Amino acid sequence: MTGDLTHLSRDGEARMVDVGEKPVTRRAARATGAVRMARATLDLILAGDAKKGDVIGVARLAGIMAAKRTSDLVPLCHPLPLTQVSVEIAPDEDLPGLRVAATARVDGKTGVEMEALTAVSVACLTIYDMAKAVDRGMVIEAIRVEEKSGGRSGDWRRPEEADR
Amino acid sequence: MTGDLTHLSRDGEARMVDVGEKPVTRRAARATGAVRMARATLDLILAGDAKKGDVIGVARLAGIMAAKRTSDLVPLCHPLPLTQVSVEIAPDEDLPGLRVAATARVDGKTGVEMEALTAVSVACLTIYDMAKAVDRGMVIEAIRVEEKSGGRSGDWRRPEEADR
Amino acid sequence: MTGDLTHLSRDGEARMVDVGEKPVTRRAARATGAVRMARATLDLILAGDAKKGDVIGVARLAGIMAAKRTSDLVPLCHPLPLTQVSVEIAPDEDLPGLRVAATARVDGKTGVEMEALTAVSVACLTIYDMAKAVDRGMVIEAIRVEEKSGGRSGDWRRPEEADR
Amino acid sequence: MTGDLTHLSRDGEARMVDVGEKPVTRRAARATGAVRMARATLDLILAGDAKKGDVIGVARLAGIMAAKRTSDLVPLCHPLPLTQVSVEIAPDEDLPGLRVAATARVDGKTGVEMEALTAVSVACLTIYDMAKAVDRGMVIEAIRVEEKSGGRSGDWRRPEEADR
Amino acid sequence: MTGDLTHLSRDGEARMVDVGEKPVTRRAARATGAVRMARATLDLILAGDAKKGDVIGVARLAGIMAAKRTSDLVPLCHPLPLTQVSVEIAPDEDLPGLRVAATARVDGKTGVEMEALTAVSVACLTIYDMAKAVDRGMVIEAIRVEEKSGGRSGDWRRPEEADR
Amino acid sequence: MTGDLTHLSRDGEARMVDVGEKPVTRRAARATGAVRMARATLDLILAGDAKKGDVIGVARLAGIMAAKRTSDLVPLCHPLPLTQVSVEIAPDEDLPGLRVAATARVDGKTGVEMEALTAVSVACLTIYDMAKAVDRGMVIEAIRVEEKSGGRSGDWRRPEEADR
Repeated sequence: MTGDLTHLSRDGEARMVDVGEKPVTRRAARATGAVRMARATLDLILAGDAKKGDVIGVARLAGIMAAKRTSDLVPLCHPLPLTQVSVEIAPDEDLPGLRVAATARVDGKTGVEMEALTAVSVACLTIYDMAKAVDRGMVIEAIRVEEKSGGRSGDWRRPEEADR
Repeated sequence: MTGDLTHLSRDGEARMVDVGEKPVTRRAARATGAVRMARATLDLILAGDAKKGDVIGVARLAGIMAAKRTSDLVPLCHPLPLTQVSVEIAPDEDLPGLRVAATARVDGKTGVEMEALTAVSVACLTIYDMAKAVDRGMVIEAIRVEEKSGGRSGDWRRPEEADR
Repeated sequence: MTGDLTHLSRDGEARMVDVGEKPVTRRAARATGAVRMARATLDLILAGDAKKGDVIGVARLAGIMAAKRTSDLVPLCHPLPLTQVSVEIAPDEDLPGLRVAATARVDGKTGVEMEALTAVSVACLTIYDMAKAVDRGMVIEAIRVEEKSGGRSGDWRRPEEADR
Repeated sequence: MTGDLTHLSRDGEARMVDVGEKPVTRRAARATGAVRMARATLDLILAGDAKKGDVIGVARLAGIMAAKRTSDLVPLCHPLPLTQVSVEIAPDEDLPGLRVAATARVDGKTGVEMEALTAVSVACLTIYDMAKAVDRGMVIEAIRVEEKSGGRSGDWRRPEEADR
Repeated sequence: MTGDLTHLSRDGEARMVDVGEKPVTRRAARATGAVRMARATLDLILAGDAKKGDVIGVARLAGIMAAKRTSDLVPLCHPLPLTQVSVEIAPDEDLPGLRVAATARVDGKTGVEMEALTAVSVACLTIYDMAKAVDRGMVIEAIRVEEKSGGRSGDWRRPEEADR
Repeated sequence: MTGDLTHLSRDGEARMVDVGEKPVTRRAARATGAVRMARATLDLILAGDAKKGDVIGVARLAGIMAAKRTSDLVPLCHPLPLTQVSVEIAPDEDLPGLRVAATARVDGKTGVEMEALTAVSVACLTIYDMAKAVDRGMVIEAIRVEEKSGGRSGDWRRPEEADR
């Protein structure tokens, strides 16, 4: 880690980094996260196809839409013409809870990690919102980038860790 | 937990719950979360007052502004005329990383948990964004409601847990 | 019809009407609309529970979220703290197509017709978007207010008509 | 019609279609719609240059601005850097009412039908809003794509129909 | 001036001030500003009723719509359910240029100066945008609050000054 | 000045100019403005590093974020994928007050003057907001483009003037 906080000028002032000189390349990023909940809450979400469809379906859509708002939310993010966003949500009986994964793609000058992370975060917030009437103790956790490709710095994949 | 997923109609369809009959009461909610990072990343963020000021200052502001966008992001949230939002961010050397706490208040018909959680989530995303050039492996974790007050269901405080 | 275009000043200039003197009352409005399509398109949308769930589910959610954006879109609308929005979408084999109905509620100083109409319009746009790859000829039609209640002007219900 | 609902994955889940591989081409789309109203309402809107200017002028602007918000409103639309939007509104004494037409253009990877349709829809909603104090019975109708050009699928023009 | 920067906590951190304890009162504010331009630019804007209608009409509408976005733009502003916004724009041959005045009203817990100022600012930006092809040298100036009423601090009117 | 108001059609109707034929070039623009205030207000803002950090830091961030919203605010602006935005704010003891400068860059088909001007305007509004509790009489002034580069019309620099 020999880097620098690129969003800060030499004087420590916030700025949107100049990416004008960077080439347009095909970029992708995948992020994941989870909502840990009481087992009964997960059962309730999964009970009945219609209901399952809706909590998970609403959260998926919220995540996709939020990815498009990333540069509105994260102050120093560049606006990006996303070419694809997908969000997948699956139950994890061991957690217990729901696991969320999002992929974002763009042909652009900057990476799309923030778009993937924003999709995951808002999908998790939406799950919390829809189930909070029965379980206020849910915890959103482990939101992180799993891999990214494209751009000068090349591909990156989260190293295995004895994590959590 | 004898509740129901109130955001779903009897047929499992998503809806924004009718809160018309609920009284306007003073409500507050506090949520917390954290960004776990490499120690060197935390040191870099904390090095120099200006720089510290900016990563933490930008993230705090992003959280406050995001709280006001909650009903734009979380599909079934009611729009709320927030009377206060504050976000606090402090280093935790043991994590290592930054801990984020947000409080939201409203005189309204529904609670403000989602606003507090959204503030925390976007503050964490902003920290990730500003430090990702030096540390892609950061993890956003433990986003949860700590306490809430006001409303028919009364006050609630997260029970102690042997958590995580 | 002895009224006046209240959004225009005496000089014909656009303005947001002053509703400061109007009392806060419980208000509701219901609007409807439809998307007429080829029968094969409707069959495709309805084929398979998952798929049906998604076209209709996505459109319903888009309508609910759009209702919250009404004052951003319609220039002279007042911002309103909606207390409820619901959107229902059902197939009509005779059209053939999908029929959309939306209800909006508020405790406020102005009516919520525009919110209900906006929900219907955006739900219809979303249906078009999701099915346009197979049927560009779809037509969005008959978007109108069916009834409203609350406010000084009292309740109103669309008169029967030998319409269309 | 041998197509597929491209916004749904094989499992029927909503997604934003990946357009990364599609070439950037010059694209255009034109959509139309109408607001049918009482003759007296149309007369009132058209009476006096200033007033006419305003109802029609406000609606035109609302349509243009809404086109830029399309990807915020329609969940699975890609964000597009529009190069042009125009909205035309003209009285139709036979309807009676106002007819709205919108054209959108982009150099992009996906079509701009949704932007043109959104412009028409919001212009119609704005007309309704500005005249609703005198005529609640107005109906928004016949919103549809008239023609599109550019992209892999080539040009398309709505076939003549014995329509309506 | 014995006040304090209320948007900063005792530690100098940004926060949205807590207005929960403040009573709801009827509040209003009026702000003004101007765009100074070459005389020929003003003539061009004023030439022909239609054209005049449009530059001034578009700027007026942009100002009204921007007032509704104030809390999205100004980080520590509270969201407010505005009950009225109006914007007036008139030529000033002596400037030469256009003078803009905006009034905002609300029944709320905080003042509406920022909403009036935002309306003026964005109306001025829009005038600049529409005339910049002929006059890049225009200057936006003298944006200020003229008077405000309501709230604990009572009415206030800008003192006469030998200003500018 | 032999130009034309390009945002108006031949009939004087507002439109978003068609830039489809224009080449993509590297463009930049710099705009400036100021907030004039009582000397005591400036002293208060500058007193203490933390406080200074926050008023100026919050305003800088507000300006950067607003630049990204330009096409949402200014009705006929094209959406632009900004590659950089920076905002600088410095005290001017002679004014007395704060001077704001913003630079915006894009690789695009239209200029970025409006983005730079919007950044300056919203930074000034934010300064007003944060200091208004102690000084209602502040004036935002002299918002103007200083220079621009790129595009068909080439580089432009504001001529020296005996101005102000």
